[in-house]
Formats: sequence, C-alpha cells, structure tokens
Amino acid sequence: MWMAELAARSGLSVPTIKFYLREGLLPAGAASGATRASYDETHVRRLRLIRALTDVAGLRLETVHQVLDGIDGAGSWHEAVGAAHTRLAGPATEAPSSAALALVDQMLELQGWQLAPGHPYALALARALDALEQVGHPLNDHKLFFNANALRPIAMQEVLDVHSDEHGDAIEADVEAAVIGTLLTEPVILALRRIAQENFSRGLDDPEDDGPADMRMSRK
Amino acid sequence: MWMAELAARSGLSVPTIKFYLREGLLPAGAASGATRASYDETHVRRLRLIRALTDVAGLRLETVHQVLDGIDGAGSWHEAVGAAHTRLAGPATEAPSSAALALVDQMLELQGWQLAPGHPYALALARALDALEQVGHPLNDHKLFFNANALRPIAMQEVLDVHSDEHGDAIEADVEAAVIGTLLTEPVILALRRIAQENFSRGLDDPEDDGPADMRMSRK
Repeated sequence: MWMAELAARSGLSVPTIKFYLREGLLPAGAASGATRASYDETHVRRLRLIRALTDVAGLRLETVHQVLDGIDGAGSWHEAVGAAHTRLAGPATEAPSSAALALVDQMLELQGWQLAPGHPYALALARALDALEQVGHPLNDHKLFFNANALRPIAMQEVLDVHSDEHGDAIEADVEAAVIGTLLTEPVILALRRIAQENFSRGLDDPEDDGPADMRMSRK
Repeated sequence: MWMAELAARSGLSVPTIKFYLREGLLPAGAASGATRASYDETHVRRLRLIRALTDVAGLRLETVHQVLDGIDGAGSWHEAVGAAHTRLAGPATEAPSSAALALVDQMLELQGWQLAPGHPYALALARALDALEQVGHPLNDHKLFFNANALRPIAMQEVLDVHSDEHGDAIEADVEAAVIGTLLTEPVILALRRIAQENFSRGLDDPEDDGPADMRMSRK
C-alpha cells in the first residue's frame, strides 16, 4: 500500500508517519521508484502500537523507542516480552530500602515466583512499599501476600489470552499484544478497583444506603 | 511546634512549607506574636499528604489543591472519600463510546454496584475499554466481568482497613488514609500484576525453565 492508505489504516496523519520514519520508529517501506515506497501490514501494526504507547499509555517518544528496540532485538517470545516489560518499568530512581526488598523476596517465595535479582519490577514494587511506609500507611506482609494472591487469576488469564490469540506473524504480534495488554489494561484494573472501593465504602458508611443520591431520586 | 520542627517532622524544607502556606494548601498556624506562628499535628499530617500526592502519586499542584478542597468541604466519611476520588479521576477528556458505557453498566449490574450516572470512574473505565478496542485488542464482556470479580477481595480489604484504623481525628484522617491508599497502592497492584504475568508467561513459554537465566547460573 502507499503512504495515503497507510495513513488511513493507522489513523495517523502523513506528516506524523513521515516523522516516525525519520526518527527510526517505523522501518522504511520497500522502495518503488525514486520517490515512492510501499508499505505492508507490519507497518500498519507498528503504527498502531506506537499510537497506543504514546496516546493511550502516555509514554514519551524516547521510551517508545526503547520499547520497540526491545521487541525488535528479542530472540524468543518470553525474551521479547521481558525486554519490553523491563523498558516499560522505566529507569531506576531511588534505591528501595532493604526491608522492602526483603518483603518482596518473601512474597515471591510464597507465590513460587522468581525474578532475576535487581529486576525492575521487584525494585518498582519495593519502592512503592517504601512510599506507603514513608507517609505512615505501610502495607504489611499479610496485605501484600493477600494482594499477590488475588491478582494471580487476572495475570494468568491475560497471559493465556496473549498466548492463545491467533496472530499473523508470531513473536512480534504476540509481544505487541502483551505490551498493549499490560499497559492499556492498567487503567481498567485501576478503575475497577476504585469503583469497587467506592461501593464497599458507601455500604460500610451507611448500610441503609441503596445507591448514590441522584440514583435514589430518579427512582421516586 | 515552630516552623523548624514542622519541617523536620514533615520532611519538607522551610521554603517549601512557606510556599504551601502562601498557595493556601496548608492552613495558617496559630499566630504567636507578630512574626511567629505555631503548628500542630494536623499541619504535620496535611504536609505528609501533600508530599505523598505530589512526590509519589505525581499529581500536579493544581490537582492536589482540588483533592484537598474535596476533603475539607465534605460532611461525611463517604462524601469526603467520594469527593476526593472524583477529583483523583481527573477531568473528563474524550467522551466514551455508548458501547463501552453499556458494557460498564452491565458489569455494574452484575456486581451489584451502583454509580451515579456520569460518575468519573465509570467514564474512565469506558474510555480505557475504548482505547483497547481502538488498538485492536478489545476486552470482551467476559474478561471485564472476570476482572471485576477478581478485584472484589482487594477493594473490600482496603476499605475495611481504612474504616477500622485508629485515627486521631475522624473524617480528615480517614479520608487521607483512603486517598493515600487508593493512589499509593496503585503502583503496588500494577507491579504485582506485572510480576505475575512475567512468571506465568515464562512458565508457558518454556515449561522446563525453572527461573531466570542468571538465577539458574548462580545455582551451579
């Protein structure tokens, strides 16, 4: 397909696509004469991924670049997903406390999970625990273990989905699905948790309350 | 206590605290002479909350202002938490599709949850579903219902914790705990989900793999 169709299919403008080509985010098309190039489905899918990472996940272009490099340089499904995940975790900032790291290790052992020492996710989790501790609302070991357990079925279902989806060309499409699933499903998880909290907290605050005020009024 | 002690207790610098006073984020202390003011525990707690919202949750100062206004203007526990939550959801951007809104309504009904029409959390959830749809990875109804169910125990435990915690002065401290719990526990939830995904995906990719490469090597 030519540039115009690529723009229509991806939902991006021609100048934006040309910018991504110049920046090396999108591989060049197949040369067709001196000034034209033709593009295929891999270009459409790559542009959709870039759009998802920038517009929806809110990543900076530099981070998008690193995520794409991770996908392109990977040799196996898990290696590619892992490389993308590592880059999604962002650069390490403050080092977490050894108490938080020990708690994370204990959680991993209880769940039967393993992470390479210093894995960005373990560090991110430990830093999040430190942050709660610092504001005087520590998350104790029982709550951490409980939450890890509760999240198992969600994560398992997501991984099975990506593995079982039918994709045209193996690894790249799987990794894109995994990255999109991880990033773009995060707002869904967080919104569901907040909605559930909102409802449980209303129920505890006033057991007689059978809904928000404006819903009750609409029933009169 | 004087300003110097307030700085030491809150972990913030004196110029920063003075800036928050000028901006109206922190209530003035009790005047004690022409140039001095004395502060109490409510000031310490408020500064810790501001620090958590800016440094850890990464909110802009304008949003912090709105969250604090919501807390200060509330008349009951649930109203205060609700007001803070509404502001945490951020301003409405694009309107979600009616298909996504219908899916959210169906999920709420199945769970026995109620939200006022147009509640920011329902809109946020619907927009997140639209985003997944737009990149070609829609979250179907079964997966949404499944995730809502899986998050119930996490949310219930969190709400019970806030309700049962001992706080000095009722509503304000409870709301602070709820806001901090909601915002600062989000990175914990997301990190746990990613760690679980990473482990399940490794297990599916290579059932013989018993850990990351560098952990296997260290056992030799």
